[in-house]
Parts: sequence; C-alpha cells; structure tokens
Amino acid sequence: MTDAALAENAAGETELLTPEEFESAIRAVGAERYHNKHIFHKMLHGGQMNKGQVQAWALNRYCYQDAVPRKDAALMARTDDRELRREWISRIHDHDGLGQEPGGIERWLILTDGLGLDRALVMSKKAALPATRFAVEAYVRYVTEQPLTVAVASSLTELFAPGIHRERIAGMLENYSFISDDVMAYFKRRLTQAPKDADFALAYIKQHAKTRAEQDACIEAVKFKCNVLWAQLDALHLAYVQGMIPPGAFVPTA
Amino acid sequence: MTDAALAENAAGETELLTPEEFESAIRAVGAERYHNKHIFHKMLHGGQMNKGQVQAWALNRYCYQDAVPRKDAALMARTDDRELRREWISRIHDHDGLGQEPGGIERWLILTDGLGLDRALVMSKKAALPATRFAVEAYVRYVTEQPLTVAVASSLTELFAPGIHRERIAGMLENYSFISDDVMAYFKRRLTQAPKDADFALAYIKQHAKTRAEQDACIEAVKFKCNVLWAQLDALHLAYVQGMIPPGAFVPTA
Repeated sequence: MTDAALAENAAGETELLTPEEFESAIRAVGAERYHNKHIFHKMLHGGQMNKGQVQAWALNRYCYQDAVPRKDAALMARTDDRELRREWISRIHDHDGLGQEPGGIERWLILTDGLGLDRALVMSKKAALPATRFAVEAYVRYVTEQPLTVAVASSLTELFAPGIHRERIAGMLENYSFISDDVMAYFKRRLTQAPKDADFALAYIKQHAKTRAEQDACIEAVKFKCNVLWAQLDALHLAYVQGMIPPGAFVPTA
Repeated sequence: MTDAALAENAAGETELLTPEEFESAIRAVGAERYHNKHIFHKMLHGGQMNKGQVQAWALNRYCYQDAVPRKDAALMARTDDRELRREWISRIHDHDGLGQEPGGIERWLILTDGLGLDRALVMSKKAALPATRFAVEAYVRYVTEQPLTVAVASSLTELFAPGIHRERIAGMLENYSFISDDVMAYFKRRLTQAPKDADFALAYIKQHAKTRAEQDACIEAVKFKCNVLWAQLDALHLAYVQGMIPPGAFVPTA
C-alpha cells in the first residue's frame, strides 16, 4: 500500500495496519498537509516579509502557544493512567516553565518583545485574528472531546516540527535584521523537546489503537491538526499579505 | 455619546447605558462589522462570482445552518426560565422544521441541490473549509460557555440580517442564471423570522443586563458574532477568489 493510499483513510478498510504502515500513513499526512507547505511560511523563512508582517505572525501565533498547556491539561484531565499523566506533564512544563525554568511561552514573549510588540497587547490576545482563536480553541476542544488515543494522535504534527524549526531559525536569522539569536530561543529549545514528545505519542497510539477504525481516526486527527495550523496561516496570509485585515485586528505600523 | 464611542466598549466606564444608548451601541457594531461589508458578499450579490464560487459559499454556509439549532439547544439547556425556553424553541423549529414544516436547513439543501451539489457531500461537511467549521463551532461553544444574557446577545446580528437577505434575494436572482426563485426560499422566510427573534433578544438583554459591565459584554458578544461571520467570508475569499484552496477542501468543477 502506498503512503498516499494509507493517508486517504480508506473508508471500509477493516484490516489492521502494521505499526510501520500506520506510522507511514501518519507521516504521509504531514508530507501533504503540514504548514511548512504554506506560501506564508515560505515567505516568512525566505525573508520576503516586512517587520509588520513578522509581528502579525508572532502576535497571532502567541494564541497557539497560549492554548498548548490548556490542551495538555485537558488531555491529562481525561485519563486515569498515571504513567500517561507523568509523561504528558512534561509538555506543560515545557510551555509554562517550572521552578527556575521560564518555559516556552515566556520565550515566545521574548520573541514578541524583540519584535517591538507590547507584551500586554500580545497577552490579551485581543489584537489577534478571530480566525486564529477559532482554530486554536478548536484544537483544545478536540483534545477535550475526542477519544483519548485520538487526542494523543493530534499532537503528532510534532513529528514534522524539527524540520520547520531548523528552516525557521536559519532563515529568519539570515534574512531579518530585526531578528537576533536570543529571540529565536523558543525554536532552538523545541528542536530537542518536540522529537521526545512525538516519539512517546507515536509509540502510545501504536499500542492503543487496536482496530483499523481507531487507526484511521488517529490519521484523521493528524489531518485535523494540520488544518488547525494551516487555517492560521491562511488567515495571516489574507490579512497581512493580501491586506484584508478584518475589523478590530492588529494593524502593523512597523 | 456617539455610536462609535459606545461601540468601543469604553474600558472603565461604569455608568449604565440607557436602553436607547445600549441599542445604539449594538447597532453601531453591525454598521462597522457585519459581513454585508465584506468584499465577498459584495461580489456574491453583484453577480461577480461563477457557479463554482457560489457552490463553495453555499456548501460552507451549510455548516453554519447546521450549527444554529445546536447553538439554540445549548442556550435552552442552560436556563430554568421556562418563558425564555418557550420563546427560544421557535428558533429550533425555524431551522429543523416541525411537523409538516421542513425548516430552514431543508430549504438550504434545496439551494445546494439547485446549485448541483451532492446532498450527501454537503451534509457530511467534509468538503467545507476547516476555518468555516472552526468559526461555526466557536459560536456554539460561546453560547454554551458565556453568561446567559451574553449568549442571548450573540444572536443579535439578526438585527442586521433582513437588509442583507433582501440584497441577496434581489442580487442573486438578477445576476445568476443558475439561481431560481424557489431556491431562494430560505432567505425569503428569514425576512420575517429574523426580526421577530431579534426584537425578543433585544428586549431580553435590555431587561437582563443590569450593570455597565454586562451591557459591555453584550456589545462584545455582537462583535464576537460578527467575527464568526466575517471569518467565514475571509476563508471563502482566500480559497475561492484568491485561489488558495486548502488541502482536502471542495474544489469546484462548475
């Protein structure tokens, strides 16, 4: 079976995928739908954005960062599997920080500080595009409402993240005078965090998706999550590349 | 106080608005943010769309129709005010139908039938833009989670609906050979349903929003709802006017 055929989530197929086929089908979703394929990311990494457009991206993407620990807490709230919670909690530590470690959301705010954005404005989320918040909150709801294994699977876009983060670090440092090494700290940290988390989640769904229907639902979950990411870039593109900023949203002055 | 100043939801203002000021502030939100201001609607009503674009609009907008009775049931589920439920239930009748009356969703499907779309595809919602579904479901969640008076207020875009429906009926019948009188039945019916509902909701919030903070939250609710509608047209515009159709979404052949 080709990756594409697997990713098609063949309705009516009942034969269980082997772990290798299952993983291939999930990776095929990323190859087709992960947001590194979006023109906005190509422009962002390629130095084709002005500072105002990079600000808009960082301000909107903050809403996603802000949702991640809530999403992870929602997942933990649903399971009596203490081992799963003990593993999953590190994701909350990564974003919220723990003890002396300030965490990924703070590192994101260092990025928005570095771009000259007002922290209170960023943290209020009020200047973000409504479409950003609709997409991000859909992800929180998905993890709250879907079967647990499917909720775990929706995190698996992390399989595709290190590539985009490496591209981003290199591309943004090279192309933008207003981006310095220290403000890219968020992405550097994610280079090591994301693969660890993805390995765990992949092993988890291989073990817990016991029917073809459950496997297919996990593959759909990765599509859903790709849609969440893609929709955010679509909204940024229309507003800040095409210039159709919706009423009330951030208007760059930089 | 000007309408614009009222609509700004002046932070820190504590003086209660008079019922007239309150209503003016809500109407000012519509004047600025209702989706009849969106370029996509101007193009749709002005005959500047091809059949594939009108199909994409109708297929996506189905997701909104589909969500409305769930949203209304969510509101009814939250109140022990029997009179409110007895009034509000007519909204569910309007969309789902009752007895011999097939209801608004069925009338919407007559529109999509008339446009040559497969009913099963439309009803599956699978070919809709992810952004459409994120926006629509955000509305259902909003009504589920916000204070009851604020949830009622979020329906008040109906104050602005008859104007757009009149424009739409005239504009679409005049401009598109593939739109016939009978497929516009949905909008004709809404010309009388929407004002009745809006009058009730407006009277309700005037009576129940007893503090300035509650009044401001109601004004915000109308902004939120305008954002839900606007984001749907933004997504349609990028996909079907700019041609950036996201992976997996409806691709017109007409």
